[in-house]
Amino acid sequence: MKIAFLGLGIMGKAMATNLMAAGYDLRVWNRTAERCEALAAAGASVAKSPAEAVADADLTLAMLADPEAAAEVVFGDSGVLEAIGAGKAYIDMSTVDPQTAIVIGREIEAAGGRFLEAPVSGSKKPAEDGTLVILAAGERALYDEAVPLFEVMGKKHLYLGATGQGASMKLLVNMTMGGMMALLGEALALGDRCELKAEDILEVFGAGAIANPMFALKGPKIAADEHPTNFPLKHMQKDLRLAVGLGDESDQPLPMVSTANELFKRAIAAGEAELDFSAVARVIAVKRQD
Amino acid sequence: MKIAFLGLGIMGKAMATNLMAAGYDLRVWNRTAERCEALAAAGASVAKSPAEAVADADLTLAMLADPEAAAEVVFGDSGVLEAIGAGKAYIDMSTVDPQTAIVIGREIEAAGGRFLEAPVSGSKKPAEDGTLVILAAGERALYDEAVPLFEVMGKKHLYLGATGQGASMKLLVNMTMGGMMALLGEALALGDRCELKAEDILEVFGAGAIANPMFALKGPKIAADEHPTNFPLKHMQKDLRLAVGLGDESDQPLPMVSTANELFKRAIAAGEAELDFSAVARVIAVKRQD
Amino acid sequence: MKIAFLGLGIMGKAMATNLMAAGYDLRVWNRTAERCEALAAAGASVAKSPAEAVADADLTLAMLADPEAAAEVVFGDSGVLEAIGAGKAYIDMSTVDPQTAIVIGREIEAAGGRFLEAPVSGSKKPAEDGTLVILAAGERALYDEAVPLFEVMGKKHLYLGATGQGASMKLLVNMTMGGMMALLGEALALGDRCELKAEDILEVFGAGAIANPMFALKGPKIAADEHPTNFPLKHMQKDLRLAVGLGDESDQPLPMVSTANELFKRAIAAGEAELDFSAVARVIAVKRQD
Amino acid sequence: MKIAFLGLGIMGKAMATNLMAAGYDLRVWNRTAERCEALAAAGASVAKSPAEAVADADLTLAMLADPEAAAEVVFGDSGVLEAIGAGKAYIDMSTVDPQTAIVIGREIEAAGGRFLEAPVSGSKKPAEDGTLVILAAGERALYDEAVPLFEVMGKKHLYLGATGQGASMKLLVNMTMGGMMALLGEALALGDRCELKAEDILEVFGAGAIANPMFALKGPKIAADEHPTNFPLKHMQKDLRLAVGLGDESDQPLPMVSTANELFKRAIAAGEAELDFSAVARVIAVKRQD
Repeated sequence: MKIAFLGLGIMGKAMATNLMAAGYDLRVWNRTAERCEALAAAGASVAKSPAEAVADADLTLAMLADPEAAAEVVFGDSGVLEAIGAGKAYIDMSTVDPQTAIVIGREIEAAGGRFLEAPVSGSKKPAEDGTLVILAAGERALYDEAVPLFEVMGKKHLYLGATGQGASMKLLVNMTMGGMMALLGEALALGDRCELKAEDILEVFGAGAIANPMFALKGPKIAADEHPTNFPLKHMQKDLRLAVGLGDESDQPLPMVSTANELFKRAIAAGEAELDFSAVARVIAVKRQD
Repeated sequence: MKIAFLGLGIMGKAMATNLMAAGYDLRVWNRTAERCEALAAAGASVAKSPAEAVADADLTLAMLADPEAAAEVVFGDSGVLEAIGAGKAYIDMSTVDPQTAIVIGREIEAAGGRFLEAPVSGSKKPAEDGTLVILAAGERALYDEAVPLFEVMGKKHLYLGATGQGASMKLLVNMTMGGMMALLGEALALGDRCELKAEDILEVFGAGAIANPMFALKGPKIAADEHPTNFPLKHMQKDLRLAVGLGDESDQPLPMVSTANELFKRAIAAGEAELDFSAVARVIAVKRQD
Repeated sequence: MKIAFLGLGIMGKAMATNLMAAGYDLRVWNRTAERCEALAAAGASVAKSPAEAVADADLTLAMLADPEAAAEVVFGDSGVLEAIGAGKAYIDMSTVDPQTAIVIGREIEAAGGRFLEAPVSGSKKPAEDGTLVILAAGERALYDEAVPLFEVMGKKHLYLGATGQGASMKLLVNMTMGGMMALLGEALALGDRCELKAEDILEVFGAGAIANPMFALKGPKIAADEHPTNFPLKHMQKDLRLAVGLGDESDQPLPMVSTANELFKRAIAAGEAELDFSAVARVIAVKRQD
Repeated sequence: MKIAFLGLGIMGKAMATNLMAAGYDLRVWNRTAERCEALAAAGASVAKSPAEAVADADLTLAMLADPEAAAEVVFGDSGVLEAIGAGKAYIDMSTVDPQTAIVIGREIEAAGGRFLEAPVSGSKKPAEDGTLVILAAGERALYDEAVPLFEVMGKKHLYLGATGQGASMKLLVNMTMGGMMALLGEALALGDRCELKAEDILEVFGAGAIANPMFALKGPKIAADEHPTNFPLKHMQKDLRLAVGLGDESDQPLPMVSTANELFKRAIAAGEAELDFSAVARVIAVKRQD
């Protein structure tokens, strides 16, 4: 089976590297060609366009930065749609909103191709370690065929139903993550007002029923007010907005998530958009001025 | 060292049992005397009132149901204050608000006694297993002396500062727990609207950065809409209200926590007060009527 | 000047009637032709399509039900775009979102036409009485020419700037209205819990600094739990959603408006979508179950 | 009938002046005696303490600054309780929380006195003009006897029920006022982001169903970012907190009011406590930093 891999950003490069290490031959493409060099050195062939990569492959994996990039790679000049043909498979692992996933899937299938969306939960480290959680939806048979690939890239993979439900699941994860970050920010801010030490708070939180890896990782960064970007705050706000939108479409009230959304918006207005999403804590811990 | 133990509810009985198993002789008291029988059978002596228990002890531990019970045991007829004398120590492990802890501590010390508040994080199971997290504040020297006892009852113990800060820390834990439960309720409700299966959502949540014991324990109960009471919803709402009050006193905005408070209030109004606090999910997942 | 008027719903019919009473000759069109009869009897000529109406007119006014209808009349078969030519003016008074206004305006102008959006504040009664507030934006010169028409239909008219700003102003009005309705619901619900009479509350509210026509009109309906539809709740929720969206685009946090949005969503889920937007009070005044 | 008047602040002085102008003889007392001079010059007798004023009077009116002052005047040295006797009437027009009103009323009545709470809606100008709205509760017969006095001081007076319900009504008014101010702040902030002019927004708001005196008065101040103190922001936040507390006691969720409370808290933390409550708009209109 010939495999193409589109998109060699931080995530894509790690995933493609793992696939090659597992013995798969890859044909790779990236918008900026230099990102292909390491993989080429490891034996990958390099395509000049998405269409060229797809033309030669039975199955194409894509890992693009955002919904716009995911759509451009499919619909743009020399894009996937120009080369996808009867029976060729396309698995889009980018994080997109449900609507974008549905549109891409519909057009791929209208062109005779097969489609699966497969966004992932997990960032750089799990991508490198092959411990992502893969949230697949779309054609069931293609999912079954892709399981060996998913087993290389992730520690867990689920088939969730119709195209769009992978994207929805990803929004559920991220909206909960955003809400929990805002709660952590409130706890540390209130603790500070009560003259409790952040390290004590984090130790107590880490020892009980609410202990979780995110608090353990981000808590000390909030305490130190250092927010090196892992997942940009503006992307989290976008996901919160999309989640509120999902609630609007289905008449599901989400008071906690919408409250978090407003806090992240405040953080963007305050200039924190490019920092890690933990920086929402800054606008929560409003400095007292007397 | 002679030790008294006041309050043999679910928590207190487990803690006292662990102390006896570790070799401490206890003199116990409980409002309803039958709760003393198992410990008496194991060798504890039984006092007829808090005062009688305290009179004979160097150090008294208390684990009462709520702030009202904690105050009554100290200030009521034949209460702790009648017998606490110079040099006698009183460690209140009940969950109370900061103000109650401060009032009790002040009066104990005014009567010549020594005082430590030491509320715990963790419920029945950790109490039985001796794996509570003990949040102590008040007299530092008394804390140091009590460490061997804390090591029997808990897996972790922290000294947090002046009286009231143990109670504040407990509120931080519980407000975060309440907020996370509301977020989980929103995620499961929105997931249901998107036709995602609860078990898939919980599996994904359990595999990533937000994985935590509470989601693992309560998620399936929300999915099954079964809420056997572990921590009553009305107590969680009371803690959220107290946390919002702490924010009022210190001018710390808590938009997430106050949103959660309103949701728990709605759940009380809807008749869920005595169920487990996971039942907040019921008022979040408003049934669609068309 | 030959004038066409498209859309003779409750609002449009009243506005067109006022224009005829003021001496303007109108050529009218409505999707369901029967709605044209009364105006035809009063001397209006009737067109068979938007294009036919526009072909013959120097200036066309439109008052359609929603953004979809407003777009269909312009872009559909025999739509405005087929007949709008150099120098012909199109004034869209429908309530649409800023984006729809911008798209319609751009296409009208690309076809050589002139464009003004002019949504109104006020419903059936002010439309009949000619006391609407007209929120115009787009081509300034066209606004100046249209002033005599606006003076017939409204008591006030403002020029607000570039196309889209009329729609934005309308959203500001409606989001504030929705938020105030939710506040009124909370006040009446809390008053009820305090055993205050609704009529006393409304009398006090009506006598002070917060007195406003909406409270006076809707308060008694909430008290009586009767919600005959003036402005459907689902339309208010849509406007709140669009307002939250405007905030998202411009990084403006709107915690009050987004809280109101979630309440209106809850009301829709509870089956109140088609009632008047005052019915949001029903889900606020959650019945106590003990 | 001999009448005493306690408390000659801005409000009290205006009210007492109106009573004298209507022909009532007053015996007045104020904490700082100089505030009595103008009334003494107009013929009032001056008492040296609340007790001295009450001793000589059939009916005493009080208008103190806050709950603490209202309680001090009753319970303090030479306070009302020392002189109130069988059949003497005490009408407290200060703004206090329901609990304070209930405690004062109970003690007055236990001492043989008669009690009415009668807080007012309206500030300096209506006090001077005799157009306050008087929210009375407590002894019905005393209310009936006091009507001629209320007719001098106010344009409207209502009997609301048991002691505490006057205070509750006042909280309903103020919580709605606070919520509406926050909504106005959001509308002006979002309007600014949309490049709409504040004066246009206020003109449109003033011409429709949401038009109200508070928007007309405070809107231009928000637009000019000038907040001369009429009603201090910190007092509004206190009332919002008390209203949320009322909701807690009666299991009534108040998501809008609690959201407003958090915004006012943010404003206090940002140093706006002593400004007019319109200054909440400052923390809503977060400055964009890019």
